[in-house]
Amino acid sequence: MGGDGAPDIVIKGLAITAERHPKARILLIGDETVLGPMLARSKRAASICTLRHAGSAISMDAKPTLALRVRNSSMRLAMDAVATGEAQGVVSAGNSGAMLALAKVVVKTMPGIDRPALAALSPSARGDVVMLDLGANVVCDWRNLVEFAVMGEAFARTVLGLPAPTIGLLNVGAEQMKGDDRVQKAADVLRGSKLAAQFRGFVEGHDITAGTTDVVVTDGFTGNIALKTGEGALRLVGEMLKQVFSSSAVSKLGYILARPGLERMREWLNPARYNGAVLVGLNGVVVKSHGGADAEGFAHAVDVAMDMVTHGFNERIRTGLQQFELQAAPIAAAE
Amino acid sequence: MGGDGAPDIVIKGLAITAERHPKARILLIGDETVLGPMLARSKRAASICTLRHAGSAISMDAKPTLALRVRNSSMRLAMDAVATGEAQGVVSAGNSGAMLALAKVVVKTMPGIDRPALAALSPSARGDVVMLDLGANVVCDWRNLVEFAVMGEAFARTVLGLPAPTIGLLNVGAEQMKGDDRVQKAADVLRGSKLAAQFRGFVEGHDITAGTTDVVVTDGFTGNIALKTGEGALRLVGEMLKQVFSSSAVSKLGYILARPGLERMREWLNPARYNGAVLVGLNGVVVKSHGGADAEGFAHAVDVAMDMVTHGFNERIRTGLQQFELQAAPIAAAE
Repeated sequence: MGGDGAPDIVIKGLAITAERHPKARILLIGDETVLGPMLARSKRAASICTLRHAGSAISMDAKPTLALRVRNSSMRLAMDAVATGEAQGVVSAGNSGAMLALAKVVVKTMPGIDRPALAALSPSARGDVVMLDLGANVVCDWRNLVEFAVMGEAFARTVLGLPAPTIGLLNVGAEQMKGDDRVQKAADVLRGSKLAAQFRGFVEGHDITAGTTDVVVTDGFTGNIALKTGEGALRLVGEMLKQVFSSSAVSKLGYILARPGLERMREWLNPARYNGAVLVGLNGVVVKSHGGADAEGFAHAVDVAMDMVTHGFNERIRTGLQQFELQAAPIAAAE
Repeated sequence: MGGDGAPDIVIKGLAITAERHPKARILLIGDETVLGPMLARSKRAASICTLRHAGSAISMDAKPTLALRVRNSSMRLAMDAVATGEAQGVVSAGNSGAMLALAKVVVKTMPGIDRPALAALSPSARGDVVMLDLGANVVCDWRNLVEFAVMGEAFARTVLGLPAPTIGLLNVGAEQMKGDDRVQKAADVLRGSKLAAQFRGFVEGHDITAGTTDVVVTDGFTGNIALKTGEGALRLVGEMLKQVFSSSAVSKLGYILARPGLERMREWLNPARYNGAVLVGLNGVVVKSHGGADAEGFAHAVDVAMDMVTHGFNERIRTGLQQFELQAAPIAAAE
C-alpha cells in the first residue's frame, strides 16, 4: 500500500515478477477491497499472489512510533509473516522510517549484529558496487563499520554472485594514516580478520563509480550523502545533455544518430535498475523499494529479495561473522 | 615548485594571469636557477613577477611535520610573506598537508575561528555553489559547522559576488529532526543568528548539484567524500559518452552534429574552471591549486586568490563573526 503509485505500481511490478519467476509465491498484504479487483484484472500478477487483508496502512509521513503501535497495518502484517517464517522476505515501497522501526522490533536484528544497515547497488565503470550504510545509522562506531563489511560482502556474494568480493572502507584518502579513529580502528580489525585478503583498505569518493572495490563500507551519514550526491551529479549531466540535444535542429539530428548508444547508457544508469535497498542484518530479508519507483523498479526490488532468499544471504552473514569473531576477539579485547 | 607539472605549469598559468590582470604583482618563490631562465623565456609572466630564491622545496609526499621544520622551503617563504604582510595571499599546487600545517602555524588562524576549512566552488544547475569543509577537518563539532557557514557566506559574497547568499547544512534529510546532535545544534544556532534569513536549514546530497543553496556546509569527512563522489559520477558519465560517440561511424557523425553544445557542456564541467580550493579562516588568503591542474587551472586558482583579496574576504568574515557572536552567545551559553 506504500509509495507514490501504490498499489497500482505494485500490482504491475508483480506482473513482471510473475513473468520472470512463475514459481514465486507472493503474499500480497493490504486493503482487499482495493487489491482484490486489481488482481482480478491482472491475471499474471494473480497467478503468483495470495491476498491477505490488512485493516490499515502506514501513511508515508507517519512517525515510526505510530507505526509500532498499529497492529493491523499492511506493513506490520508483512513483517509478522517474516517473523513467523511464513514468508522469507518482505518488499515495500512505503514509509522508510516506519519500515526500519518495524523491521527492528518485529523481524529483529540477527544475533551478533549490533545494528542493521541499509545497502544497495550503485553503478560503476567496472560493474555494480554494493554500498552501505545508506542512512539507517547516522552515528556509527568502528564495530558497526566492521559488521557492515561482513554484511556487504554477503550481499555481493548473493546478489552479484561474486565468489570473493573485494571490500573498501570509505575515507578522505587512501593512505593508511588518513581519517578519524573510527575508520582507523575498523581498518585495523578488518586487516586482522579472515576478510583481510578481500579488504583493500581505504577508498575515496571517486572509487565508488570507478568500481575500485565490489563493496564500499561507510557510516549512514556519509553513505546517504555520497549516494545522493552521486545521483545529483548524474541528474545534472542528464539535464545538460537534454538541453544540448534540443538546442538546435542539427543537434537533434546528432541525437538521433547517436541514439542507440545514448539509450543504452540511459538504461544502464536507470534508477529502476538499482531499485531495492536492503535492510541487512535482520532475521529475514527486508527490501525497501524507492517510493517513486515504477513497475520495473518495483519488480527489480522483488528480484533483489528473491536473490537474497535463494542464495542464502543471512546464512552467509552468519558464516562471515563466525569466522570473524575468531580472529577479531583479541583485537577487540585489546581496544 | 609544487604540483605535477611544476614549475612549468605555474609559469604558463602566470602568463595567463598577466594577460587578465596586468596590474597584479606576483612574488614568485622557488629555485632561481630553474625559475630565472623560465621567466626569461616568458616575457608575459615576467611582467608581473618578482623572483625570490628558496633553497629547498617541500616534496609532494613529505609529512607536514617535516614541512614545519624546514625554514627555507618555497612554501614556507611564501607563507612568511603573507604573515609579514608583504603579500596578501599565497597560491600553491604543492603538498596539501604541508600547506595546511604551514598556513596554521605561519599565517595563523583568524581570531574567533577555531579551525580553518577548505572551501571550493562546485557546479550546479543554478550556478556555482560554495562547498566547505572539503577535508581540512575530518572531525568537526557544531561550532566548527557554524563557523564554516559564516566563512562560506563570505566566500560566496566575495568570489561569486552574491549580495545575500543562501546557506544549507548538509544532512541525510531536509526535515528538522534529521541527523546527529552536531548538525542539530549547528542548525539551532544558525536559526537564532543574523544569518537566519539566509539559512535554508538542512539540504541533501542531491541539493549540491541542484543548486538549492549558494553555500553548502558540512564536516571535512563528509565534504571530501561528497566532492569526490560527485566528481567520480561526472567522470563515469564522461567516459560513457566517449564510448557512445566512438562506437560507430553513425554515432561519430552524431557527435560532430551535437559538438558545439557538447563542448560547451564539457567546458562548463571542466575541472580547471573549479580549480582553487581556499583555506578559509586564516589571517591571509591561502589558495590550493590541484596538483594535476593545467596552466588554465592554475590561473583560475590565482583569480580566486585575487578576488578574495580585492573584495575583502577576511573583513567580510570578521563582520560575519561579530554579528554572529552577538546573537549566538545566549544559545552557546545555554548549551
